[in-house]
Amino acid sequence: MIELYTWTTPNGEKPIIMLEECGMAYDLHMVDIGAGEQHSDRFKGLNLNEKIPVLVDRSRGGHSETIFESGAIMIYLAELKGQFLPRSSPARSKCLSWTFFQVANTGPMIGQYHHFNDAADETIDYAIKRYRTESVRVLGVLDKHLRTNHWLAGDYSIADMINYSWARAGLRELSGHGAEGYDALAGWVERIGQRPAVRSALEKLQDAKARHG
Amino acid sequence: MIELYTWTTPNGEKPIIMLEECGMAYDLHMVDIGAGEQHSDRFKGLNLNEKIPVLVDRSRGGHSETIFESGAIMIYLAELKGQFLPRSSPARSKCLSWTFFQVANTGPMIGQYHHFNDAADETIDYAIKRYRTESVRVLGVLDKHLRTNHWLAGDYSIADMINYSWARAGLRELSGHGAEGYDALAGWVERIGQRPAVRSALEKLQDAKARHG
Repeated sequence: MIELYTWTTPNGEKPIIMLEECGMAYDLHMVDIGAGEQHSDRFKGLNLNEKIPVLVDRSRGGHSETIFESGAIMIYLAELKGQFLPRSSPARSKCLSWTFFQVANTGPMIGQYHHFNDAADETIDYAIKRYRTESVRVLGVLDKHLRTNHWLAGDYSIADMINYSWARAGLRELSGHGAEGYDALAGWVERIGQRPAVRSALEKLQDAKARHG
Repeated sequence: MIELYTWTTPNGEKPIIMLEECGMAYDLHMVDIGAGEQHSDRFKGLNLNEKIPVLVDRSRGGHSETIFESGAIMIYLAELKGQFLPRSSPARSKCLSWTFFQVANTGPMIGQYHHFNDAADETIDYAIKRYRTESVRVLGVLDKHLRTNHWLAGDYSIADMINYSWARAGLRELSGHGAEGYDALAGWVERIGQRPAVRSALEKLQDAKARHG
């Protein structure tokens, strides 16, 4: 059985979307990061970095696999199922480039913008402007690419799934601050959000959060 | 022929280290990011995100490949050569987890620390402390793992190569600020730095920088 340890954040959404897209069975274990549950000794045993998501696969016969980092989980599941990551290049390398683009760019920049704009206990104009500018720029890179591409890398793939949650959050936070004209990106977010697997994943995650003591 | 577009930064070092480790032939194209050469129309045609490194592989017969994002380049070369990334799990998923760990953690956090500590034209104590604390923490995760592991994921792999440059830069900037006790990490950095391929890669990069008009 596959166990997913996660929470309702952009990084936490990615693997449950992939599991639903692949039609796989899994047990959902909610880790309330607001309550600090990722710092428990039990969770540290799964990920020394104390971050969700983590996937444990106990279905592999002689061994179990513990995979941390959402990008690694997406590639693991794609290769396990033979879906959503092309086997050969150039399709494969395009998919990997756009997958890493999310991890290195939209994730950290929108994450830091969110911290300084919404969470920090000091208002630091320099930092808000720095991360707003860079977040709008990287969302603009996605928008520009999507003006001439229906999906990020050929067919619908892990590159779309992994970029989706951060792009959705970024458009929500940055419309009115420079991201309001990104119609191609907004259309792609809308297309992904209407997929049955994506709707199902996000509903299950919210239900599990509501049930989590 | 393989063409590598890069510069002398932690991200820019990764693919040349891998090319040297694999004993591959390549043409080195220096892109001076201090002079803004990554914003040229020619470079934008290689990477819409206007960042180094980019690898172009014209050796694939019918097509050429253009790969951006250092993590994607490392996986591309590992799969092309069948080296430094195990084919099957759990070794493969461990290697991918530690590879993405770098892209999502040490890269952005040490990068932002460097900005606020050395490059920003305002001194913002809150941001310096935030990124110093988080950089020291993520370097500590590597150190803790390396206390009981010679390499990050079984045999020497792309996980080691991709983490090396940022860990080396991080230890240099953060010794005296909390990273001075990371002996396991420092020993691993030393071991990698002594590898002939790594020494050759870094020398070639510095030579090419010196020659770059």
